[in-house]
Amino acid sequence: IQTKLPKVGTTIFSVMSQSALEHKAVNLGQGFPDFEPPEALRDAVARAMAEGRNQYAPGIGLPTLREQIALKTERLYGHKVSADSEVTVTSGGTEALFSAIAAVVRAGEEVIVFDPAYDSYEPAIELQGSRAVHIPLQAPTFAVDWQRVRDAITPKTRMILINSPHNPTGAVLSSADLEELAAIVRDTEIVVLSDEVYEHIVYDGAQHESVLRHPELAARSIVVSSFGKTYHCTGWKVGYAVAPKALSAEFRKVHQYLTFCTFHPAQVAFAEFLASSPEHYLELPAFYQAKRDYFRSLIKPSRFKLLDVPGGYFQLVDYSAISNKDDVSFCEWMVKEGGVAAIPLTPFYEQAPGTHLLRLCFAKSDATMEAAAERLCKL
Amino acid sequence: IQTKLPKVGTTIFSVMSQSALEHKAVNLGQGFPDFEPPEALRDAVARAMAEGRNQYAPGIGLPTLREQIALKTERLYGHKVSADSEVTVTSGGTEALFSAIAAVVRAGEEVIVFDPAYDSYEPAIELQGSRAVHIPLQAPTFAVDWQRVRDAITPKTRMILINSPHNPTGAVLSSADLEELAAIVRDTEIVVLSDEVYEHIVYDGAQHESVLRHPELAARSIVVSSFGKTYHCTGWKVGYAVAPKALSAEFRKVHQYLTFCTFHPAQVAFAEFLASSPEHYLELPAFYQAKRDYFRSLIKPSRFKLLDVPGGYFQLVDYSAISNKDDVSFCEWMVKEGGVAAIPLTPFYEQAPGTHLLRLCFAKSDATMEAAAERLCKL
Ligand SMILES: CSCCC(=O)C(=O)O
Ligand SMILES: CSCCC(=O)C(=O)O
Repeated sequence: IQTKLPKVGTTIFSVMSQSALEHKAVNLGQGFPDFEPPEALRDAVARAMAEGRNQYAPGIGLPTLREQIALKTERLYGHKVSADSEVTVTSGGTEALFSAIAAVVRAGEEVIVFDPAYDSYEPAIELQGSRAVHIPLQAPTFAVDWQRVRDAITPKTRMILINSPHNPTGAVLSSADLEELAAIVRDTEIVVLSDEVYEHIVYDGAQHESVLRHPELAARSIVVSSFGKTYHCTGWKVGYAVAPKALSAEFRKVHQYLTFCTFHPAQVAFAEFLASSPEHYLELPAFYQAKRDYFRSLIKPSRFKLLDVPGGYFQLVDYSAISNKDDVSFCEWMVKEGGVAAIPLTPFYEQAPGTHLLRLCFAKSDATMEAAAERLCKL
Repeated sequence: IQTKLPKVGTTIFSVMSQSALEHKAVNLGQGFPDFEPPEALRDAVARAMAEGRNQYAPGIGLPTLREQIALKTERLYGHKVSADSEVTVTSGGTEALFSAIAAVVRAGEEVIVFDPAYDSYEPAIELQGSRAVHIPLQAPTFAVDWQRVRDAITPKTRMILINSPHNPTGAVLSSADLEELAAIVRDTEIVVLSDEVYEHIVYDGAQHESVLRHPELAARSIVVSSFGKTYHCTGWKVGYAVAPKALSAEFRKVHQYLTFCTFHPAQVAFAEFLASSPEHYLELPAFYQAKRDYFRSLIKPSRFKLLDVPGGYFQLVDYSAISNKDDVSFCEWMVKEGGVAAIPLTPFYEQAPGTHLLRLCFAKSDATMEAAAERLCKL
């Protein structure tokens, strides 16, 4: 069998998590919390199972959950959406991204992505017979150079895929960025796919600039979020997509044949929890800012140089003072010899710039951060 | 936005379930049990959540669950597979089917499917830029005419998609069928995708003829199964695919970017339950045969004509004695006026034969079957 994805191996997240297990390393690689989702949420899932919510949910998601998502969207971003025709529950953010790309992008078309780019984007694009056009973001701020975007637009450009807060860099888009984007896509047929799975994790009092705050963009965007990131349950695989009716209709056509529906008891639980505990996500910035700041204070004495973290739950560090190895080799060495798993940036680039950066996840308990920091400070 | 799937609307299963709700009809349409998964299984999910199994599982599935699937495969079908490289846990059978098609089939190639064909097959094929080649099965036995298959093979044929027990007809393939299939694909590059989600539901003492019983076919097949069908929890969306190493590698490349992984707590629970309660699936044929026979006895006095049901949990009935309407119109009428939701067969055909058949699900409690039968006997 000849491969359809010649560039693809096993995702770096699986490779590093496996390696962390083998070498008993502290795992700051793959992005997941080592603390638990709220007990009320777990109890609600158990209750939903006990109450017989174990058969198919509606393919587009439970009405009560879509209603809560619509309410949240209006409250947070001032954007009114129809729970009925504009919100779709998905089996995680990844499924939403894949469905969006498969629904919109055709063979021969192009999708603009920003490097470093989350590693599922390009394979999803390639499976459509289309091409990812990579625009590099420049360290240390990883801001978008919009002139480069303008230069990259061709008649084949079908989609621009943005991601804020950005994984792996933590960069966030400003409202000025969204203005630039709006000006670029105005009077075109370009769809915006906005990966906002870290929407609730922004720091230093900033507000998350969702494309949903921007009516002109919202009218042509598919916005993806993830309950796994928000509620500390990455292994539950529940996310959602918000898009205007016509785009949602196309999205749903694909989604219904990709997974049909999503684990039903968790949908019941999220619907309840969103209604009863909206403060949970409102407290996330403070919750993660404390973790970010504590982690930075722990690493400060090390030879790693800390980059700024405006959003998300990842710390980029520069290891040039420690080693000259490329980042993949350094991460391999570090998981084995240093006892800490991290994620190198090279796998997220079409053409890696050769910077000496790696990504550390600080969605961790104090004890985990301390154990990791102790090891990192020895390198 | 121009659609990529012009032939696709909302899946008939969603349409009929929605209609059943609106008209308070007894829902024998969409295929799901109205009874519960084993309590031990639900408890195990709750326990897994309480014990902190809430973050990403390995993308290919929990090792303990893959091990159990491998053991079961060997015990049932005498086929040894590597849990490590040949078993992949998926977010339901639908995701497995989509991943298999996306991993194997390229633009311009052809996939042979048998009509009536489960409605997710063709959109998944079309999204690859490839073409479904439809071979009709003939009522009332819906046996495969292998000469028609031989005639349909072209240099572009990349895959043959079989489904036994067959949805919606209940037909099962015999070992002679598998011999025919093996002869056809021998010395070709054709991959077999075998949808066996009803593998444990065969009647009258028959044994399920999995392609995994047939080493020559197993060596070129992706076999899909579904815990939702087996354990009465269609809303949990856990399934799996078994395929030889090289095919599994390609399958996994796509799967990891489609959903990455599957609801983790349920994987823990299935691993435990498969190990502790193998009798559960061994008792399914008797369990469902009692339902089938009871349902048939209830419908017998009606004007519906019952077709044979060798496998699966659907009863096909001929309604020509009641109405001349086409099957979609008849089902619409029946859900509204007759108070029972069924599934018409036309949506599963490229060219519907105009037979007057519809599908009734008997994975239901006695009370549900009785309520439905009372209404059906009035028509
Ligand atoms: C789907 S595994 C990767 C999780 C993640 O979002 C990350 O580590 O960046
Ligand atoms: C995924 S919804 C349809 C369920 C099913 O397999 C059927 O009713 O045939």
